[in-house]
Amino acid sequence: MKVREILECCLYADNLDETADWYADCLGLEPFSQTPDRSVFFRIGNRCFFLFKPSASLDPTTTTIGVPTHGASGPGHVCFAILASELAPWRNRLAQLGIPIEREIEWPNGARSLYMRDPAHNSVELASPSLWGISERECFPWQETP
Amino acid sequence: MKVREILECCLYADNLDETADWYADCLGLEPFSQTPDRSVFFRIGNRCFFLFKPSASLDPTTTTIGVPTHGASGPGHVCFAILASELAPWRNRLAQLGIPIEREIEWPNGARSLYMRDPAHNSVELASPSLWGISERECFPWQETP
Repeated sequence: MKVREILECCLYADNLDETADWYADCLGLEPFSQTPDRSVFFRIGNRCFFLFKPSASLDPTTTTIGVPTHGASGPGHVCFAILASELAPWRNRLAQLGIPIEREIEWPNGARSLYMRDPAHNSVELASPSLWGISERECFPWQETP
Repeated sequence: MKVREILECCLYADNLDETADWYADCLGLEPFSQTPDRSVFFRIGNRCFFLFKPSASLDPTTTTIGVPTHGASGPGHVCFAILASELAPWRNRLAQLGIPIEREIEWPNGARSLYMRDPAHNSVELASPSLWGISERECFPWQETP
């Protein structure tokens, strides 16, 4: 048997509100559920990205339904998919927002990644799915793409 | 502008080899790239799940191309999507493998989650995409589903 897809992934932020605002304002993610001082849940495509304050998600008394505890410290990593044609517009957008690009990498297969830090110092990457040999139609089958 | 999808997410394991074997043997993930004592990369659906040894991914000398460092300690979390019809077969499979189910939750909308721990103590969840109001066809548009 095989699991079929990623449904949720998450990162951690002691400065939860500041970091959640950054994902909403800078990357355009839309929060759909929030528990003050504990978590902010975002929908992206057909899956979810969650931010947790680790001191809360490690505390079993902060959930009523008994969700198992978790919570990490130190910088995590996530990569969000963009269209290859959006790379230059994203560079401009990040410059307008004053977000430094920590590194831009051109990979051996020609794909490119932009790396930045969120306010919790997590490493956030934007890349086209061709980085992993995945077509844009495969990665975004439900979205209008140019 | 909005980022469009999750392309990569990752968890951390000091016991990298043992943990990578667990994802391959127990959850059926297929590794496609490995850097000994640093990382194991798995493809799942049209995206990627990575395991890193944090002491290595935090060390800039372990990459030749200058990938920004990251690495967390403490239990992280990921949720993999399964078909709703696979919940009982997964319960049986996990029992056969001797993997304890830490918790099973029935959510208010009727979806169910199975939670377990990987060998690095990360919290791993299996759930049908209906948990987040996502249909199986939307979550696995490229896969044969019953």
